[in-house]
Amino acid sequence: MDENEKRLQEKFTQLKKYLDKGDKKRFRKTYLDMHFYDQSTFYLTLNKDERLSIYTILEPDEMGDMFDTLEDDLPEIPEYLNEMNLSYASQMLNDMYDDNAADILEHLDKVEVDRFLGQMPRADANNLRGLLHYDTETAGGIMTTDYVRFHEDETAKEAIGNLKRFAETAETIYYLYVLDNHDDLVGVMSLRDLIMLDDNATLKDHMNSDIITVNVDAEQAEVAQVFRDYEFLAVPVLDHSNQMVGIVTVDDVIEVIDDESLQDYSGLAGVSVDETVQDNPLKAASKRLPWLITLLLLSMITATLINHYEGLLAEASILAVFISTITGTAGNAGTQSLAVAVRRLAVEEINRNEFFKLVGKELLTGFITGVVTGASVLLLVGFWKHNFILGMVIGLAMCAAITVANLAGSLIPMLMSSFGFDPAVASGPFISTLSDLTSVLIYFSIAGMFLQSFVGA
Amino acid sequence: MDENEKRLQEKFTQLKKYLDKGDKKRFRKTYLDMHFYDQSTFYLTLNKDERLSIYTILEPDEMGDMFDTLEDDLPEIPEYLNEMNLSYASQMLNDMYDDNAADILEHLDKVEVDRFLGQMPRADANNLRGLLHYDTETAGGIMTTDYVRFHEDETAKEAIGNLKRFAETAETIYYLYVLDNHDDLVGVMSLRDLIMLDDNATLKDHMNSDIITVNVDAEQAEVAQVFRDYEFLAVPVLDHSNQMVGIVTVDDVIEVIDDESLQDYSGLAGVSVDETVQDNPLKAASKRLPWLITLLLLSMITATLINHYEGLLAEASILAVFISTITGTAGNAGTQSLAVAVRRLAVEEINRNEFFKLVGKELLTGFITGVVTGASVLLLVGFWKHNFILGMVIGLAMCAAITVANLAGSLIPMLMSSFGFDPAVASGPFISTLSDLTSVLIYFSIAGMFLQSFVGA
Repeated sequence: MDENEKRLQEKFTQLKKYLDKGDKKRFRKTYLDMHFYDQSTFYLTLNKDERLSIYTILEPDEMGDMFDTLEDDLPEIPEYLNEMNLSYASQMLNDMYDDNAADILEHLDKVEVDRFLGQMPRADANNLRGLLHYDTETAGGIMTTDYVRFHEDETAKEAIGNLKRFAETAETIYYLYVLDNHDDLVGVMSLRDLIMLDDNATLKDHMNSDIITVNVDAEQAEVAQVFRDYEFLAVPVLDHSNQMVGIVTVDDVIEVIDDESLQDYSGLAGVSVDETVQDNPLKAASKRLPWLITLLLLSMITATLINHYEGLLAEASILAVFISTITGTAGNAGTQSLAVAVRRLAVEEINRNEFFKLVGKELLTGFITGVVTGASVLLLVGFWKHNFILGMVIGLAMCAAITVANLAGSLIPMLMSSFGFDPAVASGPFISTLSDLTSVLIYFSIAGMFLQSFVGA
Repeated sequence: MDENEKRLQEKFTQLKKYLDKGDKKRFRKTYLDMHFYDQSTFYLTLNKDERLSIYTILEPDEMGDMFDTLEDDLPEIPEYLNEMNLSYASQMLNDMYDDNAADILEHLDKVEVDRFLGQMPRADANNLRGLLHYDTETAGGIMTTDYVRFHEDETAKEAIGNLKRFAETAETIYYLYVLDNHDDLVGVMSLRDLIMLDDNATLKDHMNSDIITVNVDAEQAEVAQVFRDYEFLAVPVLDHSNQMVGIVTVDDVIEVIDDESLQDYSGLAGVSVDETVQDNPLKAASKRLPWLITLLLLSMITATLINHYEGLLAEASILAVFISTITGTAGNAGTQSLAVAVRRLAVEEINRNEFFKLVGKELLTGFITGVVTGASVLLLVGFWKHNFILGMVIGLAMCAAITVANLAGSLIPMLMSSFGFDPAVASGPFISTLSDLTSVLIYFSIAGMFLQSFVGA
């Protein structure tokens, strides 16, 4: 990787020199020979004046190839678009793959969108408007309409000829979608299979008619699963009347997978972890505080509960010593079971029958975990304090607190999911703060029952 | 999706009928028309007798196409291989894509591997042995050697002709790798570009010679990043003498991305979350207990620390009321900063300079978070207990505890990473248990200083 990077830095220096000297020809040659992603890395190093002169050197479609690789949520994009002249920006957006153009438009306000679309040919503008219509996290929100269509009666030779026409604009030409006279999708053929056919073979006779499709409303996570299972490079998207409206390509699916795992990870952490090195401490703190303060309020309920038992604590201040051991360990167990449950929900749907089976299993898992941990703490406390009755109280409380935390950790995300919420929102910090409350309640109830015996022992 | 599934179930029923009746011809037709992944789903529903009869109906290469889609860590695979006869199994492994075959062999013991390889042509066996040699989580461990090679002097027409030869065996034919007379990789061309060329154009004149490659030792996460950036379908792998030894394809990269995110998620949760619904509670508990017991021991240190302050607690049992509020909130803050740090480390390398800058930023973020949270708790406690000096003690302790937990949450993974450990191992439960210790220490130190004023107030 390092060598790639060094070579790239040299090119960037060269390019800046050409730009300074106004050597458009050499600039174009060096720039256009680079990968689109490298072009975008270069573009992002430029200041406004440099960018303005680039717009005079490169054609809108050349600019669009590079913009296709930019992250659509890059905060600078609106600025870039506004510093171009309107017709240049519109043409660039129109020359981009339509899914990427729609993703960029998604982040602009309505007036801006209308300005850009107003400059495009009516059909292209309507196409983009159609894409903007879909929910971002569905198949419709990530699909492109730039795919290759063929008629079932075409021969292999005709198809290859036609493919050359598509190759300029289609997002992928490696899957051919075969339609019948009613424009219904009746088959798929890979370019690999097409290349191996005799010139006169018709598509109809050699296409794969066992077509895996996704619905335009399918959640993006569901679409990603299809790619994992079938190892496709693209999958066709159908609307409600089973007409093909687009394809989702594998590069977008990689983004989806990253997105989904970032959401799960953020959920477990109780903070949105998309902070970048650029985030200043004030902004970072403002992202973390809402959850922290909410959970602080929840933990104040735990404090009032302990306050309620102040009499017990005054009699046996030794009880205070083990509060954090019990709440901490139960919280850890709850976090574990939460993570397992959220991950399971991400991978499979759970019906009613399985729901109760899983809850039963998790209860048993919690109990086994609780017994082993409880027994450990019984021995630790017993030997340390030479008081096995106290050890038993702590051990019992630990066992019960872990069982309850474990159950909560799996039950809460499962309930959330069955009521249609994203289970990943039930964060680790939430579960451990909630389990503090139940653990304290369990601990002092048990301690209260045995108070005489272990204080007396 | 549901409709896909229903249609599939019908096919499976049909297939089982053909199998029962011994109707080999119809079975082959229906089975081979299905997608490889659907074939594997069907295969996994069969009992041993049914599987044995399948081996007599399908050729080893047809079986191999299906085995290519199986998860390589499926625990039943050794059983499947052993119930086939040896030469059938070896031929099937040899007909699979070599990266997938190597992944399967990876899970067998050495004697088994030798048995299968012993049946293969020497060159194929050596090729697989070579792949087994690489670390699983590197480019070498996930690459295939089934890629398409062309000489730079070939014309487009020759190349397309040759491609048909490769199309049977190569894992992808959508990227063509162009070699010179020394077998050095000098260019890459996509099939898309090839198709658009005139018949007599030579590859040399139209190939892309700005080649992005990965080293055979590169970590799989690094390889995944190349795919994210460049949106490739495959990337060439070079050995230490810059000779091309294979390619990594996008389907394997999706697996890598899933792997890596599962590892991060498991790290944050303090448990390996690859538990399936099949895991019984005993097995699930045994996966969770090691971390729990380890952290229990750490939390016992916190208990001895509180024990050390028992005198203080006896004088002011009100202090016990806020232990869990302070430890819990600081633990939550630590988990947040840990998650942000681990995620940042996954995305970018951090040099020495940035290290200190990031630590400074995180310290400030923690302090801001601490001040806001501390002020909130000051007010809550002040009004609740009508004692603002007590409120100030709790608030100060909270502020300091959060600052420290935040710092630890980011410092520990960064230090681990700079010493070459996987930062994701520093789990959320570990940070929150560790922060219990520092929080209690801070809390009682501050409370001790102000004891007279707030008990007296």
